[in-house]
Amino acid sequence: MRRVAVISTGSELVYGRLQDSNAAFISACLFPTAFTVISHHAVGDVSEDLRRTLGTALSEADIVIMSGGLGPTDDDLTIEVVGELFGVRPAVDGPSLARMESFFKSMGREPLSGDVRMVTVPEGSVVFGNETGLAPGFMINHNDKILVAMPGVPHEMKPMFENKVLPRLLSLFPGSGRDSLTVRVVLMREAEVNNLVRSMSLPFKTIDWGITTSPGMNTVCFVSRAADLLPRELILKEARRAFGDSMLDTSSKNLEEDLVRLLEAAGITVAVAESCTGGLVAQRITDVPGSSRVFQGGIVAYSNEAKENLLDVSAEILYTYGAVSEETALAMAHGARRCFKADVAVAVTGIAGPGGGTEAKPVGTVCFAVGTADTDRVFTRVIPGDRERVRRFSSQYALDGIRGSILTSK
Amino acid sequence: MRRVAVISTGSELVYGRLQDSNAAFISACLFPTAFTVISHHAVGDVSEDLRRTLGTALSEADIVIMSGGLGPTDDDLTIEVVGELFGVRPAVDGPSLARMESFFKSMGREPLSGDVRMVTVPEGSVVFGNETGLAPGFMINHNDKILVAMPGVPHEMKPMFENKVLPRLLSLFPGSGRDSLTVRVVLMREAEVNNLVRSMSLPFKTIDWGITTSPGMNTVCFVSRAADLLPRELILKEARRAFGDSMLDTSSKNLEEDLVRLLEAAGITVAVAESCTGGLVAQRITDVPGSSRVFQGGIVAYSNEAKENLLDVSAEILYTYGAVSEETALAMAHGARRCFKADVAVAVTGIAGPGGGTEAKPVGTVCFAVGTADTDRVFTRVIPGDRERVRRFSSQYALDGIRGSILTSK
Repeated sequence: MRRVAVISTGSELVYGRLQDSNAAFISACLFPTAFTVISHHAVGDVSEDLRRTLGTALSEADIVIMSGGLGPTDDDLTIEVVGELFGVRPAVDGPSLARMESFFKSMGREPLSGDVRMVTVPEGSVVFGNETGLAPGFMINHNDKILVAMPGVPHEMKPMFENKVLPRLLSLFPGSGRDSLTVRVVLMREAEVNNLVRSMSLPFKTIDWGITTSPGMNTVCFVSRAADLLPRELILKEARRAFGDSMLDTSSKNLEEDLVRLLEAAGITVAVAESCTGGLVAQRITDVPGSSRVFQGGIVAYSNEAKENLLDVSAEILYTYGAVSEETALAMAHGARRCFKADVAVAVTGIAGPGGGTEAKPVGTVCFAVGTADTDRVFTRVIPGDRERVRRFSSQYALDGIRGSILTSK
Repeated sequence: MRRVAVISTGSELVYGRLQDSNAAFISACLFPTAFTVISHHAVGDVSEDLRRTLGTALSEADIVIMSGGLGPTDDDLTIEVVGELFGVRPAVDGPSLARMESFFKSMGREPLSGDVRMVTVPEGSVVFGNETGLAPGFMINHNDKILVAMPGVPHEMKPMFENKVLPRLLSLFPGSGRDSLTVRVVLMREAEVNNLVRSMSLPFKTIDWGITTSPGMNTVCFVSRAADLLPRELILKEARRAFGDSMLDTSSKNLEEDLVRLLEAAGITVAVAESCTGGLVAQRITDVPGSSRVFQGGIVAYSNEAKENLLDVSAEILYTYGAVSEETALAMAHGARRCFKADVAVAVTGIAGPGGGTEAKPVGTVCFAVGTADTDRVFTRVIPGDRERVRRFSSQYALDGIRGSILTSK
């Protein structure tokens, strides 16, 4: 097993202004491999601290993976400190420079002096091009140790690590991959998922597993303990038995992707009517590339007036049952279906907070409706937590509501 | 300044299953004090790794604050490793034991043998009672170094740190904190922000500063180097001169909050028409608590049909200029203003990718329109990057477009 230390740099981390997500991402990617992450370190943009931490990491691990400090400004110190430690000079990376120049040209601008810093790497290192930003990453070997450096911005670091760094590391150390299988379970409590996994008839002596939780989603990762292959069919059979329709297709990375795939396979189009989620449901569906083939559109009707005018919710329903009611949700879903001529529509109306709650309908009360040509389904959930959590869970219930209507009609 | 190192322990951290929030919390609490956090470390529940990391932290810092590893199970190693390093024996803490016994008694249970581990601390240490859980924290001095250990569960650690540990540390080392000021700059390049900060007429000998970048936003944090107060008025004057309208109000935490505040102050209502952003613009506005006072609603019109039927974009415009054009964007904005009877509307239409690009309109081409009763403004941006980045930047341009229309009409 190769030992890996992960370093995240940036004063915002040690100031406590930003929570580091890079180290956890890198570790999760490495978990199913034979690379073992033994430590995470975070340091500010201070040469002395960075130098000391790099030294510590290189002494305890075979491979050091760092992110951050590759930008254009004075507090971006990675190249300088790495060059000093490894005794190599900085050199401009030609392809990255050309890419940066054409980028600035397309905006009618010239690169500033600091920008060239961004495309500088230690001489002789392996360069990883940056496809979602400007600063390249690099890998350098020294005394049997490997150092990888990547930009710190998560949406630049993540694809670089997944698509370039990890394949490179796996090719350098063949046999480092362990077999793994990920199962995603929607809207089930972690403790329940945990008990269901334990109840599976699986050879747990050779299979390791762990659960990661995010709002409304639990991800179970099965990993072979040794170099063996996992019994994939058996695991999937057991998981389907345990989780039923709460389990996503294994090819789906998240709920919205699973939903778009199901809609496309069934040839069904969808529309959305949102109140408290304010566009989040539509946004999540349209996050999926190719969603335009199934997504007709959405209406964010925050005010009662908008619910009446755009979604044809009658004043009587709004007056009798209130804006946050299953009756209003259903009328909104019907309105959205008509508006967009969609096969199925989902509607969400609720109280996200912090204001607006009453004794009968406290903050977190959210009503949902899913309407198709044949059937309607309405339900209400009371979601604990702050505004962000209520909105996030509401979007999860809405997306899973449409998903459920397709799965049960099958 | 006392130097602080923060250690978080737990195998779930280095497995990447859980993102550490304790280190950021502790750092944010210490930031305005005279204690300087110089590093974060995370290690798994492995004696050797914990011992090594504690050694590193004690060698680089005056104070080490750790969380985790105080539970009842075999992988809770803190007491053992600390005792060994500091040469002290473990001892049961009487008050914590009594508290635990009465807790279990109230549930009709006896403590298990492992549970006593939880109320054990190094002999002679200062004990911090746990008011939201069972395991106490402790503080121990050795060779002029201070070690603080707390439980890892955030809802136990946070109140213990805020209410007990921090006051204790502040009383041990009296002296004032550092002053800080944050300035947020929207849609300006990091290198440009960096140059503008450098060009400010400020006493940089006494002011430290750093920049954090997120998509479409740079955050500049000014910190006093010593115990002095910052010259706040001077910094704000210089920042306003340098950044102009690109700078948010200092009370706004992000662009959407700044926009909602401006709309509210001006008594202006807003509506949104979105194509490629698919609801993201509406979602970001409605993320702000109280946005219902200014936000009328939004329409996500993905298809041409929806643009015609719901937003009254004429077939002629769509045919002549195409769905991704400033002309269509303007017609969408007009449609949204009418639909929702709003004072101002913004429209976004573009190609988020990965498919749909042409030579004339490559992926990333996005057209915007901001319409009010008096004036219209249209603009086009070509945004490099993947679908997520194009959508995120598009929402930033849209929100800042509305913001600009308010600021210039002032």
